[in-house]
Amino acid sequence: MTGRLYGVGVGPGDPELITLKAKKILEKSKNIAVPKSYQEKESVAFSIAKNFLIDKYNLMEFVFPMTHDSKELLKSWGKAADDIALKLDEGEDVTFITLGDPSVYSTYMYIHRQLVERGYDVEIIPGVTSFCASAAQAGISLAENRETIAIIPSSYQCDNFDTILDSFDNIVMMKVAKNLSYINEKLLEKGLLNNAVLVSKCGMEDQMVERNVKKLEKQNLSYFTTLIIKRNGEK
Amino acid sequence: MTGRLYGVGVGPGDPELITLKAKKILEKSKNIAVPKSYQEKESVAFSIAKNFLIDKYNLMEFVFPMTHDSKELLKSWGKAADDIALKLDEGEDVTFITLGDPSVYSTYMYIHRQLVERGYDVEIIPGVTSFCASAAQAGISLAENRETIAIIPSSYQCDNFDTILDSFDNIVMMKVAKNLSYINEKLLEKGLLNNAVLVSKCGMEDQMVERNVKKLEKQNLSYFTTLIIKRNGEK
Repeated sequence: MTGRLYGVGVGPGDPELITLKAKKILEKSKNIAVPKSYQEKESVAFSIAKNFLIDKYNLMEFVFPMTHDSKELLKSWGKAADDIALKLDEGEDVTFITLGDPSVYSTYMYIHRQLVERGYDVEIIPGVTSFCASAAQAGISLAENRETIAIIPSSYQCDNFDTILDSFDNIVMMKVAKNLSYINEKLLEKGLLNNAVLVSKCGMEDQMVERNVKKLEKQNLSYFTTLIIKRNGEK
Repeated sequence: MTGRLYGVGVGPGDPELITLKAKKILEKSKNIAVPKSYQEKESVAFSIAKNFLIDKYNLMEFVFPMTHDSKELLKSWGKAADDIALKLDEGEDVTFITLGDPSVYSTYMYIHRQLVERGYDVEIIPGVTSFCASAAQAGISLAENRETIAIIPSSYQCDNFDTILDSFDNIVMMKVAKNLSYINEKLLEKGLLNNAVLVSKCGMEDQMVERNVKKLEKQNLSYFTTLIIKRNGEK
């Protein structure tokens, strides 16, 4: 019998924000698949997961390039899927970990689809997202009542940013570090500069929650920085 | 010293999808505040939380009316805040539980703000949302790469539904049970009827995941029903 691939969300950063189910799976995992970028010394997801791992596990590190080149990306995902399939064929389970939740901007889903197509048994374990944890740390809601939420990955240019700022009650901008000046300009134009909260490295030791987003423009912000804009204010 | 109010997300339904932190707080909670609607026999959030509670706890049930009448709502939230404040004044902590995550369409935030205003110590513990759990059960992503997500509470009429369907890559419609016929009509008009997945009672015993959303129109769907629309298909 072939093994099962688990796609496990380890939560937003604080190891206590992992689910009981994720913990249980990690505690019995022999094979841990960890996505990494070139830049990272140690994967943040792995630094959470290792609190729960058995003594002797097989670490499968996959370096995925931080590129928008789809050919290069497909190649690296295919390679990871091949390696994981080999383990599954040996009858062993593989646990692929991901920061936050596997369904929200994670590399896991590419691997997941490839292995589903090849007929393997898979299971996704959802996790707490960084934007929910950021809202909790800032003491604000992401939406109430009839309000809407837009979630935008801000490391890309967003075509309809203006329309979204005009029409959504709450806007979550993920990974804003590089584009904060541009975003702030837009917020100023829309009269929303005082309606934003920035949360950086949520739940980690050097977390920052800041409502004066203007003054952060020139700072070297972490990749893990989320901006929450509340069009109707914080109430 | 006054006590602390904890706003705890207990996750989407499966008791194993609660976080370690939420479990730890529940295990030492003497006072459990539970929001309830008139219709509910037992709160779903409470049915999860009670797996972790001590033998003798003080149950504080608050019946919040299922109404859009803001006067009536304010009155019931104020009453709940008063009751909780009394306990906090006695130096006891109070744990207010909420299904999913406290920042996403939960009653908790109204109570939270009232108690922050009165100067009490508060802490929010984020949880796994129903939409992340629904995506996991359906085996799909909520967003990848440069994709955007819109989240709409569908028990209300959404003013710019057309624009959202035209411009967002992924659309999460929460609590669609009552408006599924109307939504399906719109999806048909936009050529999106085959791009939707409906998840009802996610993670509960009688969970349903259905891609043929048209056939569900005449069914009596649970209040806990989420529709995920993927404009670019499931890939």
